[in-house]
Amino acid sequence: MAAPTSSPSFVPGEPERIVLRTAIPGPRSEALRARHGRHQDARTIHFYQDAARSLGNYLVDVDGNVLLDVYAHIACVPIGYNHPALLAALRAGRFDWTAGFRPALGVAPPPEWVELVERTLMRVAPAGLDHVVTVTSGSEAVDNAVKAAFVRFAARRRGGAPPSAEEQAACMANAQASANAMTVLSFEGAFHGRGLGPLSLTRSKWIHKLDFPAFPWPVAPFPQLRYPLDEHAAENAREEARVLELVEAILERGRDSLAAVIVEPIQGEGGDRHASPGFFRALRAMTAARGVAFIVDEVQTGAGATGTFWAHEAWALPEPPDAVTFSKKMQLGGYYLREDLVPREPLRIFNTFLGDPFRLAQLDVILEVVERDRLIEHTRATGAYLVDGLRELCARHPARFAAARGAGTFAAIDAADGAAQAAVVAALRARGVEAGGSGARSVRFRPALVFTRRHVDELMGVLDDVARSPS
Amino acid sequence: MAAPTSSPSFVPGEPERIVLRTAIPGPRSEALRARHGRHQDARTIHFYQDAARSLGNYLVDVDGNVLLDVYAHIACVPIGYNHPALLAALRAGRFDWTAGFRPALGVAPPPEWVELVERTLMRVAPAGLDHVVTVTSGSEAVDNAVKAAFVRFAARRRGGAPPSAEEQAACMANAQASANAMTVLSFEGAFHGRGLGPLSLTRSKWIHKLDFPAFPWPVAPFPQLRYPLDEHAAENAREEARVLELVEAILERGRDSLAAVIVEPIQGEGGDRHASPGFFRALRAMTAARGVAFIVDEVQTGAGATGTFWAHEAWALPEPPDAVTFSKKMQLGGYYLREDLVPREPLRIFNTFLGDPFRLAQLDVILEVVERDRLIEHTRATGAYLVDGLRELCARHPARFAAARGAGTFAAIDAADGAAQAAVVAALRARGVEAGGSGARSVRFRPALVFTRRHVDELMGVLDDVARSPS
Repeated sequence: MAAPTSSPSFVPGEPERIVLRTAIPGPRSEALRARHGRHQDARTIHFYQDAARSLGNYLVDVDGNVLLDVYAHIACVPIGYNHPALLAALRAGRFDWTAGFRPALGVAPPPEWVELVERTLMRVAPAGLDHVVTVTSGSEAVDNAVKAAFVRFAARRRGGAPPSAEEQAACMANAQASANAMTVLSFEGAFHGRGLGPLSLTRSKWIHKLDFPAFPWPVAPFPQLRYPLDEHAAENAREEARVLELVEAILERGRDSLAAVIVEPIQGEGGDRHASPGFFRALRAMTAARGVAFIVDEVQTGAGATGTFWAHEAWALPEPPDAVTFSKKMQLGGYYLREDLVPREPLRIFNTFLGDPFRLAQLDVILEVVERDRLIEHTRATGAYLVDGLRELCARHPARFAAARGAGTFAAIDAADGAAQAAVVAALRARGVEAGGSGARSVRFRPALVFTRRHVDELMGVLDDVARSPS
Repeated sequence: MAAPTSSPSFVPGEPERIVLRTAIPGPRSEALRARHGRHQDARTIHFYQDAARSLGNYLVDVDGNVLLDVYAHIACVPIGYNHPALLAALRAGRFDWTAGFRPALGVAPPPEWVELVERTLMRVAPAGLDHVVTVTSGSEAVDNAVKAAFVRFAARRRGGAPPSAEEQAACMANAQASANAMTVLSFEGAFHGRGLGPLSLTRSKWIHKLDFPAFPWPVAPFPQLRYPLDEHAAENAREEARVLELVEAILERGRDSLAAVIVEPIQGEGGDRHASPGFFRALRAMTAARGVAFIVDEVQTGAGATGTFWAHEAWALPEPPDAVTFSKKMQLGGYYLREDLVPREPLRIFNTFLGDPFRLAQLDVILEVVERDRLIEHTRATGAYLVDGLRELCARHPARFAAARGAGTFAAIDAADGAAQAAVVAALRARGVEAGGSGARSVRFRPALVFTRRHVDELMGVLDDVARSPS
């Protein structure tokens, strides 16, 4: 591991280090939980956050504890807390036009929306995708991207003919046989959201899926690779070839019904599982050959944390995906799409809000900062330093940690099992580091793009301390 | 019809009347549509709105036309455009704490969120419902309310026992037979959103449902009543009794599978169809007797337009609904629920954002204005005046308009058929009134709560002009 390097903060005035004042959660958090719990489910809450005092990479809780945040609200914080550019934009009135009413953006959007779509979403659009549908959340993004794939699939099958009177009547009774037979393929360990539609694609944990009706859609194994990937290249290539053969068989069986394949670039909830660019290129080629929509779900990987703005940029695809979903760091949900995924009839993909101007106006400021401070390139470099550090940590503590991996600062290590995973997340929090679990035994790191070497060093010190403590 | 009454504006400086400068949409709107259409589906857009210049009940478009808005972004505008209280709150810094980052509200909410939930959502909570789940949209609200009903249904069936290993494994393959057999009953003409789950409950138009997989859930007819309801009481009572008998048969057939019944107080997309308080009391009693969740979807009816804060308050239910969904005028989606709809395990109902502090902070200001200006009582009175006016309109033009009906200002009339409906909406827009269609031939009115008698009079003048013009 390189010697600790001082690096300037991207957020002036950011705390210098973790400060612990109470147990975490502390008494004020627990009092708020009791109060909050009378009306909302507060059991999942880690602690209550002092929104105004949090800054940069440091989350301040209501008990005055200063935590180094490498979870960042499940990967939702792009440029840290209370970035001065966001606060200056607020004071300069850049969000004022969004505060007088909440519009139905498919009915009467203001011209500012049109400009913003160009200046934000299209400025960072994945190559080859020049359309974008905005919605409100990641789950809605997946729901609608899949709907667009169904519309295209059915339209092609109909060969340009209008739907029959029988189809029109049957769909009103949820009994359109040709529609109900359509499917989407997802992968074991995938997380694509929690709406009843997206949940039929999510395959992460039974607690997410138990007791909810699901569509009978197929599932393929996701490659189970060994890390570091480059040290196990031959073995990993065999595993990916095995999976691709199974996928090809599912595509063949679904030749009359499979409308889309959806995949995360890195399984962000299902254990931070990676696959190689070649694996994804093969998926793209196989789906393209059959006219099946290839949907890349970048809700968690998108917006720079992996070291490219979109994680799939690292694959060097010869042909773009059919759709790319986003949310989280992008501040609102949506999906990019190729023009032929736009339904021929309007109102097939539609809802009341179709996004939120306030959150898109904030993204405008965020992208200015990302560009000005070259935060993607920065994150690529910081990520390499972080993953190097995690590898050395695993080498020093092989009984505690393994399988360090990451792209950019989107990184993880494995604990021995689920109990050890929970213990590590708890031990980190007790020491002032907010991290999260991923899958059955991984610990995930999802810092903001303003995470620097000095934050890596601080994190490594805490991880080392956890590793040295009795398990 | 009472003589036109002058009434003070609730929004100082509001335009005095409609002003037409161009055709609607005008050339600037069409230029924006062409530009916008390169990246988003702009075919559904009526015109582009000058967000800053719109005020109160008057929408100003980018061509300088001043329209009287009785559609209000599909019923999303509670206190008119750019209400001075909202702008003052912005300038006073009341939204500042929401602008520094977008939180995952189930992980680390700020204490302001806890206070806001109490001061906004719980202040207007339906009687008997002391829990609330916040999400981002109406579709997500329905999706999650239904999920909560499934969880409760399955937990009761399991009698407190944990799920079996077989169930845990089966759900991961979308093959949990007991879950897949569960159903929810909705009504013909219902609109409950466009996610794949909610879409299985939506029964409005085939264009909403065609080519999307749907769950095989039952549907009941919705009472097809004659208006005015009080003049056709006996006939309408027979129709409701007929429907209730069919619903009872569906409940009986679904005794091992039906987890919930979902209904709108007034079908807001499916033709502004009303039913009597007695009908809804019967539904509540029948579902309560069988332990089936009774979900009232108030996404469109909620927040005061019907003359009570929640439309279902007018039913005098002896026992509250199990859940009440909301969105639109509430500025973000969610549902109220009884405590026994809270799953025993955390993380069953969960997602990343779980709402948006900015929009809830705006609701805080909106509810202050609603209370201060007594806008619910006001809307009840204005609504009676509006519906009286619509009845007289129908009486004057029986060949053009029929079936005037409404609750508060949530009102509608029928045109002769779908072509006439479209022609009336277009003729209104050409004369500077923004209204909307509902169902196969109705025209709907969804003004903001600051709609007054003078706006009714202006609307009536335009409707009369439309009725007198060649059809």
